[in-house]
Amino acid sequence: MNTNAFRTLSYGVYVVSTWDRGRATGCVANSAMQITSSPATVAVSINHDNYTNRCIADCGRFAIAVLSEQTDPSIIGTFGFQSGEKTDKFADTAYAIRGNLPVIEDACAYLVCEVIDKMETETHTVFLGKVVDADVLKGGDPMTYAYYHKVVKGKSPKNAPTYIPEETQSGQKWVCSVCGYVYDGETPFEELPEDFVCPICKQPKSVFEKK
Amino acid sequence: MNTNAFRTLSYGVYVVSTWDRGRATGCVANSAMQITSSPATVAVSINHDNYTNRCIADCGRFAIAVLSEQTDPSIIGTFGFQSGEKTDKFADTAYAIRGNLPVIEDACAYLVCEVIDKMETETHTVFLGKVVDADVLKGGDPMTYAYYHKVVKGKSPKNAPTYIPEETQSGQKWVCSVCGYVYDGETPFEELPEDFVCPICKQPKSVFEKK
Repeated sequence: MNTNAFRTLSYGVYVVSTWDRGRATGCVANSAMQITSSPATVAVSINHDNYTNRCIADCGRFAIAVLSEQTDPSIIGTFGFQSGEKTDKFADTAYAIRGNLPVIEDACAYLVCEVIDKMETETHTVFLGKVVDADVLKGGDPMTYAYYHKVVKGKSPKNAPTYIPEETQSGQKWVCSVCGYVYDGETPFEELPEDFVCPICKQPKSVFEKK
Repeated sequence: MNTNAFRTLSYGVYVVSTWDRGRATGCVANSAMQITSSPATVAVSINHDNYTNRCIADCGRFAIAVLSEQTDPSIIGTFGFQSGEKTDKFADTAYAIRGNLPVIEDACAYLVCEVIDKMETETHTVFLGKVVDADVLKGGDPMTYAYYHKVVKGKSPKNAPTYIPEETQSGQKWVCSVCGYVYDGETPFEELPEDFVCPICKQPKSVFEKK
């Protein structure tokens, strides 16, 4: 089996959010799709290890914010590379309450869903949600997972269904130990100012490792 | 609810194929996604009205061929706008047997899956499949649904989860009554040669209607 074939499936990039007993939480997901048009239902796949998974199960509702190519990449760092159990991901993120759920503002559109069914797999839960609210926010071109990899140069969080362990890279590259971003700027990494932060996850220069 | 929000979800374009009691059949789908990486499983959503749905249920296996931007658009016409019950869609389509299933050749990659679970909705079945074989075929950039709409200028088959009825267009446009392709060439439609065929579904000039 050639797992490179899996990389040809197309996805968007989403922030799936819900309530954690009254506190807003969420995570990045790319496995979301519309299942039926009437009544509108969508499916989203969330890893069992993601704190958001149990929060969705408890709350019975989730929102999908569709990231656009214009969305600040730090959103992916905040929501994709930290656990919502210990971090208040919404603390520094603009959001509004839509359809009774917290939805980030920096997105091209959103859908709010009520869980109507779910299917368990070994590692992920597929939540089936009936759409109860949806609207366009900032518009723009939706970010595809391919765009994220090619342009934003991010890496998959380990909990993503699409995660493939990468071989250790040879050569002299500085890699963010939090999100895997590989620095490729013209200025040598050592000469970057001390307040340089990872453009993806906003972690400081000190978390970068030479690989 | 603003259903334009649904259009911001990102998809690929796939031919999902299986056996109809020994005869190859299949349909176009865009709702497919990987659910887990190990063991690799994918989900695909197929309308109850698609003949392929009951064939997958009977056969217990399905293949997903990932179309690329280079795939001949007539594949979409053949597999997306006709029923496999009455048409032998593979008759004029190059295919090979891979993982014991018929898989079209004009694709960038394929996955063969064994049905391990399914979830029913009002209109669609979500099949969960364990990937038993996968490989890259021609490679190339996977066709996204957005690319299909913007570049190939196709329309959604009515059975697609993403189908939204369009308002009747005003003006003098020639529209393929089979697949909805809107002719926009420089030559006036009336002056096209009689052997002109729809670039999407390959139907003759006579099926076009002025709208």
